[in-house]
Formats: sequence, structure tokens, C-alpha cells
Amino acid sequence: MENKLMLMIPGPTPVPEAALLALAKHPIGHRTGEFSSMMGEVTENLKWLHQTTNDVLMLNVSGTGAVEAGIINFLSPGDRILVGNNGKFGERWVEVGEAFGLNVEVVTAEWGKPLDPSKFGEILAADSKKEIKAVVITHSETSTGVINDLAAINSHVKAHGEALIIVDAVTSLGAYNVAVDELGLDIVASGSQKGYMIPPGLGFVSVSAKAWEAYKTAKLPKFYLDLGKYRKSTAKNTTPFTPPVNLIVALHTTLGMMKREGLESIFARHERQKNATRAAMKALNLPLFAPDEWASPAITAVSVPGMEADKIRSLMKKRFDIALAGGQDHLTNKIFRIGHLGFVSDRDILSCVSALEVVLGELGYENFIPGAGVAAAVKVFTTI
Amino acid sequence: MENKLMLMIPGPTPVPEAALLALAKHPIGHRTGEFSSMMGEVTENLKWLHQTTNDVLMLNVSGTGAVEAGIINFLSPGDRILVGNNGKFGERWVEVGEAFGLNVEVVTAEWGKPLDPSKFGEILAADSKKEIKAVVITHSETSTGVINDLAAINSHVKAHGEALIIVDAVTSLGAYNVAVDELGLDIVASGSQKGYMIPPGLGFVSVSAKAWEAYKTAKLPKFYLDLGKYRKSTAKNTTPFTPPVNLIVALHTTLGMMKREGLESIFARHERQKNATRAAMKALNLPLFAPDEWASPAITAVSVPGMEADKIRSLMKKRFDIALAGGQDHLTNKIFRIGHLGFVSDRDILSCVSALEVVLGELGYENFIPGAGVAAAVKVFTTI
Repeated sequence: MENKLMLMIPGPTPVPEAALLALAKHPIGHRTGEFSSMMGEVTENLKWLHQTTNDVLMLNVSGTGAVEAGIINFLSPGDRILVGNNGKFGERWVEVGEAFGLNVEVVTAEWGKPLDPSKFGEILAADSKKEIKAVVITHSETSTGVINDLAAINSHVKAHGEALIIVDAVTSLGAYNVAVDELGLDIVASGSQKGYMIPPGLGFVSVSAKAWEAYKTAKLPKFYLDLGKYRKSTAKNTTPFTPPVNLIVALHTTLGMMKREGLESIFARHERQKNATRAAMKALNLPLFAPDEWASPAITAVSVPGMEADKIRSLMKKRFDIALAGGQDHLTNKIFRIGHLGFVSDRDILSCVSALEVVLGELGYENFIPGAGVAAAVKVFTTI
Repeated sequence: MENKLMLMIPGPTPVPEAALLALAKHPIGHRTGEFSSMMGEVTENLKWLHQTTNDVLMLNVSGTGAVEAGIINFLSPGDRILVGNNGKFGERWVEVGEAFGLNVEVVTAEWGKPLDPSKFGEILAADSKKEIKAVVITHSETSTGVINDLAAINSHVKAHGEALIIVDAVTSLGAYNVAVDELGLDIVASGSQKGYMIPPGLGFVSVSAKAWEAYKTAKLPKFYLDLGKYRKSTAKNTTPFTPPVNLIVALHTTLGMMKREGLESIFARHERQKNATRAAMKALNLPLFAPDEWASPAITAVSVPGMEADKIRSLMKKRFDIALAGGQDHLTNKIFRIGHLGFVSDRDILSCVSALEVVLGELGYENFIPGAGVAAAVKVFTTI
């Protein structure tokens, strides 16, 4: 059907009508009192969402640009950093570090498994000279649906004392409790097309006082991504470069929606939908790619032994206008991924699971009792 | 009045309704055939607009990000470059060069005057060792309304043979004839909120074969702004990082409008509106900041001896909902700037000039005959 697309990919995620209509408003000048007043409110609400009094800066970049800014503003060529790599995005931050001539040490885990915090602990404890300047962690690894143990890794970073913790929270912020001040997270990067419920185009970086200290002596070159410029402008409710005005107006709308829903409700909604999705997949005898304890609240990766994942995705799109994500790199055609991130309701999960039952049946998959997946999801959603 | 804003600033510029409605369409996934098909058409149309067979790449950045990408992808630390500086943006490219450790030589001209091409000629001719790797020029200097003599400066660069020419065409592309292939321009950078007629959020960079040769050995660090990644993805009608999907859908719409209008008509429209605006200001005895021969087709800067420019702007906004731009840095409150860039019709110029007559009268300015400004504009627009 035309116009009936339901996005259940990990980004772009669904956008509420109020935000779409905000996008369609004619742009206003960005050097006006009207814009500054909106910018001030947006900045306050971003701090609320990050649970922090740190600066939260907004850049006209994708999530990758935000994480890159979060790395290069606080380091100098040759600096030693530890990067966690258990998926496509962890891999990308290794590449960023190498592209900028950092001395990158990688802590790996198999795709689909969480990073082992004790490995970080060992390396950090052995660094008596305090040479490690930063630890870079992908919180929710979008490629595999694994959430890493940020709190445990962070406690090792805090015990080290010198290193900054830099967090890719692109698919966790606004879905999971990322308590920036409580944990003392130095740099947290995220992107607009995820928990923020607006289209892609804006990146966000929160920066601690300790990170600003490191900024003073950091020597990697930067200009457009120079967070010092954004800090200075943000303090005056303006931007160093022309901002994507329409996206900011839409963000102003969705941040208001998020405040009305409340952080606890938002986190509970993502947790509930994750649980319902996983329960349904188990009932359909489809193996989950990430373990229960370390399953991302934003995305569920599903293995399909004996089937082609891309056939399932293709039929889901054709029959039901539901867009699912595929596997990346060596996981291509081996898994599909269900996004339950941002503007997704419990109803969407029920639609998706029941549509999947039809598709599995049509593809000749026989290892399930029709209705079992939906029944499992219904059970999770039945609260009394 | 609410909802009646008319943007006559040099960006954001007015956005046609069709593009606003395109922005409000629900995003689609960027890893789909539907998106790739649109991306292919957009890329073809960008090449048409640039009058080139070179790669034209699209980044999720502002105009500044696009120019920075155009500089840092082709140079190594310590490389000698020449940068033209006769305004706020020329100044910015000097800062970018210095931030990245380039050996920057600056060719200056007073704000409001064009760069002297012969100065470039002398320095380039003296460089017998061919140490100068690039010449960076702001084509239309938005801060002053001056257009620089790109063809003449480029001819000196071509005579040198080694240096690349890097052009900030942010407020000239889509307003003035920037014939990339005919002139052999190596790198041309621009931004979406200008001649492209959509809101801010996308930057564009065209890259010649000669520039790609330089890319191979260029050592400045980059990742998000690494144009090689964009080249590889664009060839497959995709993007290296999540693109701002909604802006691209809107761009698809406006590029179609531009093709239907035709390049010659677009350039003639900007030329005509520039002439009408300037004739009107002269008839109102308001001094023009840029000389006639080197007046930007995108923006007219107007001096206001004995008056406060910001009072004029404020009353234009309050009485007529017309947003004009102010002066920057030392020109604050000394000039106002009328944008006639992108989706601006002759009718808008007539509105603006006649509204300005009311405002000047209300502010007690007596050095004009009421109706003289509009009469001068009417004369330019009367073609028979």
C-alpha cells in the first residue's frame, strides 16, 4: 500500500505527526530572538534527557559525526586509547582512532556477545603510568542488538582516574537509562533519528568538566567539529554555523513529548517492548542473537537457521509494509533486526509479531504453532 | 502578523511549499531501493546544476563543513596554500587552514572590495618550485555582497599548473554561472539553504580528477569528512553514514523545479533582481557597499549613513514581516543586507523596496522622493 510504511529499523525510526508538521514549517532566521529562545529551551531539555548539568551540544552531523567529535576534541596525536569492539559500530570507532593517528588498543568480543568489563579492568589497572587517555565504548551495539555493561566498564575507568570515558549512546540515549551525572560519563554522543523521534540530521555530544580540561591541551585538528565553538555559542543560545533550523523545530516538539511521557515511562516502554519481542521470537523458535542479560532495549537481532533473512524482510515489506533491518557484513542474510526504538507503541510490536507469523508460514517455516509468537507478546503486555 | 515571515536574508532562504511538504513526508529507510533510486536522480541533477561530469558529493553538514571537507581532503600538514580574504567567510577559511596546520598565505582586500586577481598571479608566478598546493577563494562573499573574479583568479591558478582551486560557492551556486567543467574548477563547495531552495542541513562538494589525485597522498586526518568514503558510496547510490533523508527528499523536489526553470533563467532572474535592488537603493540615495561590477547576484549590502541599520531591520520585521540581514563584526549596525537568493520572485523585490520606503520615512530619513526606489525597480523589471 502506498504511504503505509512502518519503520521497525534502528534508524530512521518512526516520526510523530507533530514533528513531521513542525519540519514543514517555513524556516526562520537562526540569528533571531525567536530562534535563540527555542534554542535555549532545546538545550535545557537536552540536559534533562541526558540527566546532566554538563554542556550538551548539538551539531549538524550524523551519529558518526557526533561520536567522532566526541573523540577528536579531547585527544592529541599518538595518545593511547582503549576501544571496545563487538560489532559494526565498535569497529568504526577503531577506524576513527586510527584515521586520527591515535594509539588504539582494541578490546574485542564476538559479535552478539557483550564486551567483558574485566578485560578493561585488567588493562586499565596495569597502566600505572596513566598513559591511557580515553576509553571508547559503544553502549547499545546496533549491529547485533547487544547492550554493553557501561556501568561496570565505567567503574574501571573511574578507578584508573586519568582516562576519559567516551560513550556512543546513539541507540541507547532516550531508550535506556544513561545517567550521565550519576555515572560521571565524560562524553556521550547520540543522533536525532533514534530515541529523539525526529529524522536524521542532528548529532548531540555531552561534555563533562573533566573533558573540557582535556580539551585545553588536545591537539588533534578540528574546526567544523570543534566542540569549543559549540560550547561558546550554546551558552548564548546560538550556533557557530548555520544550524538545520527545521530539524531543531521538530526536536523542540519531540523533546516536549518526551518530557510529558517522562524518563521512567520511556525506559519502561522500551524494556517492555524488548521483552515482548524477545518472548515472541522464542515462542516462534527463532534464536535470539544477543543473550537475555545483555539485550539492547532498542533493537532485537534474530537468527534464522535454514532460512534467508532477507526473504523474510522482503515479504514483511511487500505484504505488510513493515521495514525490518538486515544483518551487516558477515551477518548479511543470516539475521534480521527488529527496531523498537523511539516512537514505537506496544501495538506496533503486536502488529510486527503477528505479521511475521504470516510471513514465516508463507515461506514454509514449520517450527512454530501459529499464534504462539503473538500469545507470548500478549502475555508480556498483559499487566494484570 | 503570524505566519507571514518573508526571508530576505542570505540563508535560510525562502522554501517553496512543495519542498516544505516533502520535508514533512515520513522518512524512509536509507538502505532501500527506493532511497537509492532517489539518490541516483539527485546526484545526476547535482551534476547538471554544477555543469560537470565530476563527482558531486552530498554531506550532512553546513556550508562551512562542506568547505572544510573541500580543503582538508586534498592537503597535508604544512602544505602551502593561498587564501583570499575580503570578508567574514574568507576570514573563516584562513582559520580552517590554520586550525589544520597548513602554511597559509593570505591575499586580502578591504571588506566591500573584490580580491585583486593580479595579486594571486604574482604570488603564483613567483612560485617556481610549485610549492603552493591550493588556492582557496570565496566566490560570493556573503558578508559584504561582493562577488570575486573567479575566472581571472582561476586563470592564474591554471597557469601555475600545480595548485588546486578550491571554491566556496555557498552563495553563488544556483544563482550565478559557476561552470565547473568549463573553468576546470577542482573543488566547489556549497550549502542547501541557499540557491538549492531547501532548509539548512546539507553541504555539497564537487571534486575533479586532479583533486582525487591529490587526495591519494593527502595526509590531514579525516573520517566523517573523508570524501573518499562519500565517493565510493555515491557511486552505488548510497551514503557512508545515515543521511538526512527528509532534506534529500526536499532537495529532490527543488532540483526538479530548478531543471524546469533552466539554468539560464535562474541566473537571469538573480541578475535582474540584483539590478532592480541596486537601482532602487541608488534612487533612495542609500550607498551600496559593493561596487556595481563586483556585486553579488545573491545579496546586496546597503550602507546607511546617519542611521542605525538595525533600527531599519527591526522596523521592516515589525511592520512588514520582512527579515533582512545585518552587518557582521565591524559592520554591525552600519549596513543591512537584502538577500535575493533562491526562491525569490521579482514580486518579492517590489514588496521589499516599497516596504523599505515606508520604514525610511517612519525613521525620519528625508533624503529621497517617496516612490523613487520602487520606480527604479519597476524600470528594471519592465522589459518592453
